Amino acid sequence: MFNDLRASDVLAAAHRIREVVQRTPLVHSSELSALAGAEVHLKLENKQTTGSFKLRGALNSVASLGDDVRRRGVVASSAGNHGLGLAYAARRFGVPATIFVPSNAPKVKRDGIAALGARVDESQPHYDAAHAAALKFAADHGATFVNPCAGATLLAGQGTVALEILEELPDLATFIVPVGGGGLLGGCASLLRRASPRTRIIGAQSVATDAMARSLTAGRVVEIGYPSTLADGLAGQIDDEGFEIGVHALDGIDTVEEDDIARAIVWLDAHGMGRVEGSGAVGVAALLARRLTSLASPVAIVVSGGNIDDDRLADLKQRFA
Amino acid sequence: MFNDLRASDVLAAAHRIREVVQRTPLVHSSELSALAGAEVHLKLENKQTTGSFKLRGALNSVASLGDDVRRRGVVASSAGNHGLGLAYAARRFGVPATIFVPSNAPKVKRDGIAALGARVDESQPHYDAAHAAALKFAADHGATFVNPCAGATLLAGQGTVALEILEELPDLATFIVPVGGGGLLGGCASLLRRASPRTRIIGAQSVATDAMARSLTAGRVVEIGYPSTLADGLAGQIDDEGFEIGVHALDGIDTVEEDDIARAIVWLDAHGMGRVEGSGAVGVAALLARRLTSLASPVAIVVSGGNIDDDRLADLKQRFA
Repeated sequence: MFNDLRASDVLAAAHRIREVVQRTPLVHSSELSALAGAEVHLKLENKQTTGSFKLRGALNSVASLGDDVRRRGVVASSAGNHGLGLAYAARRFGVPATIFVPSNAPKVKRDGIAALGARVDESQPHYDAAHAAALKFAADHGATFVNPCAGATLLAGQGTVALEILEELPDLATFIVPVGGGGLLGGCASLLRRASPRTRIIGAQSVATDAMARSLTAGRVVEIGYPSTLADGLAGQIDDEGFEIGVHALDGIDTVEEDDIARAIVWLDAHGMGRVEGSGAVGVAALLARRLTSLASPVAIVVSGGNIDDDRLADLKQRFA
Repeated sequence: MFNDLRASDVLAAAHRIREVVQRTPLVHSSELSALAGAEVHLKLENKQTTGSFKLRGALNSVASLGDDVRRRGVVASSAGNHGLGLAYAARRFGVPATIFVPSNAPKVKRDGIAALGARVDESQPHYDAAHAAALKFAADHGATFVNPCAGATLLAGQGTVALEILEELPDLATFIVPVGGGGLLGGCASLLRRASPRTRIIGAQSVATDAMARSLTAGRVVEIGYPSTLADGLAGQIDDEGFEIGVHALDGIDTVEEDDIARAIVWLDAHGMGRVEGSGAVGVAALLARRLTSLASPVAIVVSGGNIDDDRLADLKQRFA
């Protein structure tokens, strides 16, 4: 699957979603540059509409559906950013959307999804049950299931993050990206591997959500648990497609501790980069913890999202300032 | 040289010139599709500002210069579209431009270049002398010589033609492009070879200006004469860099007769594609003359420019309608 993705699909996605998606800032950081021994730039997808890059893939997925298919609606299971992105994309194209939100999900995210006009189904107790219910809903109603981290149109949309970076840094040497199920990684790599083959691609994960890192070490898909983590957007298993993406797309992968993530969130807030959620902070965490040094310059780190609760952010700022 | 061109340089060029350059129409043609046995789309660079794609490379070249270098100005030798493009780009960036126009050039093009605010030097009797004088001027005044069909920034700018096509046709199977010195071909191929490696690239030339075709057949740069041709924008020699581009970028090359070009100009005018100069019509000429058939679909043909004299167009319409 990953090797069938074409760089031209990312170019087409960018053209298709250009009028809706924000071109997010790419900001140079002197402090991180000094730590890395290279010029470091942050791609602030926390400033994206709906608060994360997930809007890009959702928009491209919905935009690529034919009129007949659109009418039957889209469906997903998500407790967070994918649900927000898909709800926004669906509203933009006038498509009915149903999002299965686990009943244990944060109320703030559920409310955000509902505020965008999507139908929210909270009947399922946890993510796996919500996922199964969403698939069943798609089968019963002829709605299109939009996977949060797979599918050619979704990945092509996520790849537009890398496209915007290359437009400003055509000699990009190091690309650092948060890795969960592999959607953002796969989309970005499908462009970078072709359009900028010398760019080194490094994944970042929390040690609590290291399915990709463990699977690459084992040489096969490894199941992990669901421990509590600040990087909740990266939590969960990877599937065969995600594993294939990791094998082909990554030159390296690093895992960071929860305290590193917390410090990165606070650091980003204090340095004017805005609110950043744990999943979005793992790349910066790896640099601040001096786990990634002597990087080839220039470096771009994707800060993938900003949807963090007020209370949690306030608590972290108090404890890690 | 060609193999050092990165697809990411084309992406960066597109970003740099986006606000100035026109996104030109990509128009489907039912008639040409029937002839080709494939879906044929025309990229109408004759509708570009200054009347040809040459503006793209000129803009990217000037935009890429540092402030100190810009102040010393730019210089080129051209009897046509490159001069117009560079004069426009220079004016846009507030850079002094000097264009050496051979005294035997059409008055209409000289006047167009002067109208854009460039200094026009007509002291040289023909193109080769104008070229030598432009190089001397650059050396004497510290001005930057902008080659019409070489240089990384110029080629990256021309490659944005292919980028816009890929954005609308990500599965582009056949790309047909007029070939003179190799600038447009090289820029487009540097993107297509990486971002869409399955695209077949076919060059088109007039038999009267077939330096590339003859050189590829001979396996070395072959000098040709300067016969009169409707495809005056493609006339002249190729250099070592152009030859290298041809070797790596072309899957095939076709040459058309003068009457085929004339018929294509008239056909394009009659089918609502606007004024097209001979150089811009060679791709369509190859299809109309049934020299290219059974093409892999979809096909994009670059109609590269539209600067044709009123009298010449009127005469062709009378003789070939």
